[in-house]
Amino acid sequence: MSVIRRLPRYYRFLLELKNSGELRVSSHDLAAKMGSTASQVRQDLNCFGGFGQQGYGYDVPKLFEEIRVILGLEHDYKAVLLGVGNLGRAVINHISFENHGFTLMAAFDSNPSLIGTEIRGMTVRDVAELEEYCGVNRMDAAFLCLPKESVEQPGEILYRSGVRAFWNFSHFDLAMKYPDAIVENVHLSDSLMTLRYRMNDSRSEDKA
Amino acid sequence: MSVIRRLPRYYRFLLELKNSGELRVSSHDLAAKMGSTASQVRQDLNCFGGFGQQGYGYDVPKLFEEIRVILGLEHDYKAVLLGVGNLGRAVINHISFENHGFTLMAAFDSNPSLIGTEIRGMTVRDVAELEEYCGVNRMDAAFLCLPKESVEQPGEILYRSGVRAFWNFSHFDLAMKYPDAIVENVHLSDSLMTLRYRMNDSRSEDKA
Repeated sequence: MSVIRRLPRYYRFLLELKNSGELRVSSHDLAAKMGSTASQVRQDLNCFGGFGQQGYGYDVPKLFEEIRVILGLEHDYKAVLLGVGNLGRAVINHISFENHGFTLMAAFDSNPSLIGTEIRGMTVRDVAELEEYCGVNRMDAAFLCLPKESVEQPGEILYRSGVRAFWNFSHFDLAMKYPDAIVENVHLSDSLMTLRYRMNDSRSEDKA
Repeated sequence: MSVIRRLPRYYRFLLELKNSGELRVSSHDLAAKMGSTASQVRQDLNCFGGFGQQGYGYDVPKLFEEIRVILGLEHDYKAVLLGVGNLGRAVINHISFENHGFTLMAAFDSNPSLIGTEIRGMTVRDVAELEEYCGVNRMDAAFLCLPKESVEQPGEILYRSGVRAFWNFSHFDLAMKYPDAIVENVHLSDSLMTLRYRMNDSRSEDKA
């Protein structure tokens, strides 16, 4: 796993430390939180300029801000979310978009019983208005909490309006259709399958 | 990415092909679906015995069954789910546990307004009954759709009852607390952060 994949975790642990008022942290303590080693932590953070001091450790607010800048979080990207079923609602309610450099501007669904309802201060809009909305308000990213078969049409509208970043919970292969887009997939069933596979694997080890 | 991580995707694509009645598939078509190359597909499947035939491709039902056996899906593991908020409901409603080698036996929550409600044919149980339930019904796995601060106590109950496999949506670090357990984490906010980071990255490339 590359340091790029680990950076969000550093950011998250540092946010926790900062919120609980910690001013400094050693590479050992950071490593313990990361499930890593102190030397790996030092190596990772050296990649980004090396903010640690021997015998003192890392300055939490300073390191937090440095990683915040590296992650580009001083600028918020505008995003829409599609699909306000259970998954979409879980995402809207549980993710602190501000802490991840996004402003969630609007949520859309095609289900008449959901359109017009309120969620975290937003009124759910009709997906039929998506094209107009994205034409007027230039969006940077879209969060797709839709089933595979419902992604193609709104995906095309988003792409044509200029959206080039997708957080994709569906199994629709956006990366193949739009090779110039940034696609981060969350495939829950693949993750469950990996768990299942690792369970078998450990069972065969027990037997061996 | 290792072939182990790719196997669930092969399984998923083959399940789709099988369900739509396809009897055979070429390494080229499989590669197109996987966003991979034909030679990578042949190399991957060779790892598991090589079921392809030159000029014919792969026998879909046969390859599906072989991967099913490799993934150990001929035997169902018993699982409980904790946390029937939006996220837990999304998981219960959208994941076909049978196709992933699990039987979801019961769902638990601590919220009195959720306990006793029905979801996908199950009655939500009080988490206070978890210890007794797991004592009587030996569970293999637990799916944790709880916030970080609610995981420790039920996690301990599950572990003591013998559960050694966790599908963990929380940021509670189960792998560190239980080094002999199999933990598959789904960290949605880390994934969103990776998207954000890649967006910055591509912006700086544009500038360069």
